[in-house]
Amino acid sequence: MEKVNISEKLAKFSEHWNPKIVGELNDSYVKLVKFQGDFLFHKHDHEDELFLVLKGKFTMRLRTGDVELREGEFFIVPKGVEHCPVAQEEVSVMLLEPKTTLNTGNVVNERTKQKLDWI
Amino acid sequence: MEKVNISEKLAKFSEHWNPKIVGELNDSYVKLVKFQGDFLFHKHDHEDELFLVLKGKFTMRLRTGDVELREGEFFIVPKGVEHCPVAQEEVSVMLLEPKTTLNTGNVVNERTKQKLDWI
Repeated sequence: MEKVNISEKLAKFSEHWNPKIVGELNDSYVKLVKFQGDFLFHKHDHEDELFLVLKGKFTMRLRTGDVELREGEFFIVPKGVEHCPVAQEEVSVMLLEPKTTLNTGNVVNERTKQKLDWI
Repeated sequence: MEKVNISEKLAKFSEHWNPKIVGELNDSYVKLVKFQGDFLFHKHDHEDELFLVLKGKFTMRLRTGDVELREGEFFIVPKGVEHCPVAQEEVSVMLLEPKTTLNTGNVVNERTKQKLDWI
């Protein structure tokens, strides 16, 4: 039961597309992640997913159009909705999602992280 | 399915201790709240609760000691743990908690908000 300083946690890693767990509550994890470049379209059939921009900006591509997200904005991707985060420059994001959520959702490939680290 | 700009939402209300709903995911709400002054000790028997400081600072009083929380820090109060937020000056906080969570937990009095508004 300790507080989490987000900046301190962000300073602990530099790799992209590899979420780190920084908290848990109820059936969910709080994660921090850094994005840069393109991810891949995927969906989570049973989990809604929250993206809160901490630093920088990115585009959430949806099949229905793009959503531009800046620092201090969040977006909730409902279950079943295909999405693809894209960041021209590095962006730091807080995620909130059920513990069961896989980063690549219904797609399993070399970008899938089967096990996430706590930091 | 629209993004939420936190500053814009915070500008929509000024009252203290009355959380506003700004998003929902899975079985939880994302809420914004402004604190000033003392709340009351209470607990949530079945719900963990996340407090993320957006602007300002506050103290989370626990029976085991105080936790000082500043902008960019979050604290998760586990279910069953008595807590009492106290803010000397106004602070803006994001909450994440199950939809069933009552602001005053096991205590029901004049500060209880039985129904929260979406903003």
